Amino acid sequence: MTQKILVLPGDGIGPEITAQASRILAACQARGLDVEVEEALVGGSAYDEHGEPLPAVTLDKAKAADAILLGAVGGPKWDKLEDLAKRPEKGLLGLRKNLGLFANLRPAITYPQLASASSLKPELVAGLDIMIVRELTGGIYFGQPRGIEERDGQRVGFNTYVYSESEIERIGRVAFELAQKRGKRLCSVDKANVLEVTILWREVMERLAPEYPDVELSHMYVDNAAMQLVRAPKQFDLMVTGNMFGDILSDAAAMLTGSIGMLPSASLNESGQGMYEPCHGSAPDIAGKGIANPLATILSVAMMLRYSLSEPELAARIEAAVGKVLDDGLRTADIASEGMRTVSTVQMGDAVLAAF
Amino acid sequence: MTQKILVLPGDGIGPEITAQASRILAACQARGLDVEVEEALVGGSAYDEHGEPLPAVTLDKAKAADAILLGAVGGPKWDKLEDLAKRPEKGLLGLRKNLGLFANLRPAITYPQLASASSLKPELVAGLDIMIVRELTGGIYFGQPRGIEERDGQRVGFNTYVYSESEIERIGRVAFELAQKRGKRLCSVDKANVLEVTILWREVMERLAPEYPDVELSHMYVDNAAMQLVRAPKQFDLMVTGNMFGDILSDAAAMLTGSIGMLPSASLNESGQGMYEPCHGSAPDIAGKGIANPLATILSVAMMLRYSLSEPELAARIEAAVGKVLDDGLRTADIASEGMRTVSTVQMGDAVLAAF
Ligand SMILES: CC(C)[C@H](C(=O)O)[C@@H](O)C(=O)O
Ligand SMILES: CC(C)[C@H](C(=O)O)[C@@H](O)C(=O)O
Repeated sequence: MTQKILVLPGDGIGPEITAQASRILAACQARGLDVEVEEALVGGSAYDEHGEPLPAVTLDKAKAADAILLGAVGGPKWDKLEDLAKRPEKGLLGLRKNLGLFANLRPAITYPQLASASSLKPELVAGLDIMIVRELTGGIYFGQPRGIEERDGQRVGFNTYVYSESEIERIGRVAFELAQKRGKRLCSVDKANVLEVTILWREVMERLAPEYPDVELSHMYVDNAAMQLVRAPKQFDLMVTGNMFGDILSDAAAMLTGSIGMLPSASLNESGQGMYEPCHGSAPDIAGKGIANPLATILSVAMMLRYSLSEPELAARIEAAVGKVLDDGLRTADIASEGMRTVSTVQMGDAVLAAF
Repeated sequence: MTQKILVLPGDGIGPEITAQASRILAACQARGLDVEVEEALVGGSAYDEHGEPLPAVTLDKAKAADAILLGAVGGPKWDKLEDLAKRPEKGLLGLRKNLGLFANLRPAITYPQLASASSLKPELVAGLDIMIVRELTGGIYFGQPRGIEERDGQRVGFNTYVYSESEIERIGRVAFELAQKRGKRLCSVDKANVLEVTILWREVMERLAPEYPDVELSHMYVDNAAMQLVRAPKQFDLMVTGNMFGDILSDAAAMLTGSIGMLPSASLNESGQGMYEPCHGSAPDIAGKGIANPLATILSVAMMLRYSLSEPELAARIEAAVGKVLDDGLRTADIASEGMRTVSTVQMGDAVLAAF
């Protein structure tokens, strides 16, 4: 049965990098992958065209798709929009929420060819392979009540950090199951010494643990986790945490590798439908210059093939092709280094295609 | 007029490190500093003795003091206390709240003698000198409502992230004023693309900016700030942010220096009363072994002399003494390195005293 893929280029460098990833998808089709590929607008570009960051037509296509490939959203052009509901980010958040993409998998991997690009000492990041599992449809991102209102003669801003047992259990199970397939060490990150919501988080993780006796569960406060990531990142295998802490820690972890332009991510729902996107953002400063690194988006296609389309062999081929172009010394500007050949976005796409 | 100082050793390594700092205080008295020094219990040790982490007698003494020197609180012994209100951390939070210590100043400085201890490449941290101004008596740490309750047949945990205009303005002014005395670049950290409370935060910072025309104000999302701290920390001069983000970022920034055992902090209220403490925690794993690094606590005394007691010269003397013992090659275990002499907590105190 033909599966449906929706490509959402988004804003900034989004269109440039998804264009290269789409070429890889086409090459997969040529090798027999039975998919239909469509495109739609999201984020600032959707706002410019339709007056909202997640138009109904996009959401409908997203719901009908088996998998979604997203570039990135956002940019200074829309940062001044008074109405938060119209901002590009709401397109992304709306997709996550409406599709129930509660499980965000963010690998932080150091590519051996790029270890020297890290700001950390090479020995601390060589071979680094962390997976951060971030809850993506709850927590303070979506909690009610929220807003800005007048109280006692002055304005007050407020948001609500909230998790139910079932939300925690659901993401906890994803993390425990992934841990079983990896190094079997799961670190749950919270702030249980201050926040009640994370006391419940910790309790539920503890309650689940006996069902996964082969996984060693530990707990860490978020401030300590941020420190430990900087100090000795290889101590971690898999980390699980809520939406806000996950946002911060996964970006820090990705940056540790020195090549955030290489890192894909997956956001999954309970039926295995997934949205795949690079960890980096829309990089408005380099948009349109043809120099963005398309590899994270290309590797997001590989993740999609593995997690949503049950095509692990094609996924592995893409990953191998990316490895080969790195071995051959090709680098986009963000990962450029002495003695290597700096190439454009399109040239990088060409090279991966040639190696595929 | 005799000023009052309250020393709160706290838990873990707290008593060991404050003991050394108290010797320095005594040496200051010998040099003419007119202070009375008292001690009291806080945190887990107060709970063990009085059944609560912030006994009334401690709070009364704290209120009467001109300045407070705190070791650290917390430890696994009390982590299982069901009642969050009894945990050691509540002693610390109660002090902050009851004394109105809303402005937390957390420097992240790389000592030239210790630059190689950083996990970052030396050139990225050499000469690093960041100050993080963290709001300390509001935000999600204290927001109401909070708790864990039954809703629709399951338990739900919730906390409230809330700031009023006046709270934001107050910490904003502290940050702008400090920026004027430093590099004049202030970066305000928020998550204004998702959280309403931080939209208000950003607005108030923008509103204050014209009053400080010599300070260059910028804004950064918290996830990006975590990345940028890892990637290129020297881009920052002063950062200002809320309680929770400040907790995470200041610990990450402190760890970048490679010597968190060296970093003091100050928490100030509107009348200049202050609490001073090392950035590191109670380190229960090494408590009682006599190997903890007392320098952050000793440097906290220097900060106290500067910010609360108007004794900048004594402060500078202490800082110079610490510089000298480092130059002389003395190191506690946490900052030990080849060719240097590893010393105990007490030996380090001896050395600073001798150099003072
Ligand atoms: C763009 C923004 C809303 C988003 C988030 O905070 O989740 C991004 O930072 C991410 O991590 O995917
Ligand atoms: C002990 C804890 C409550 C405290 C905090 O989160 O504020 C600590 O981490 C700190 O940063 O001083």
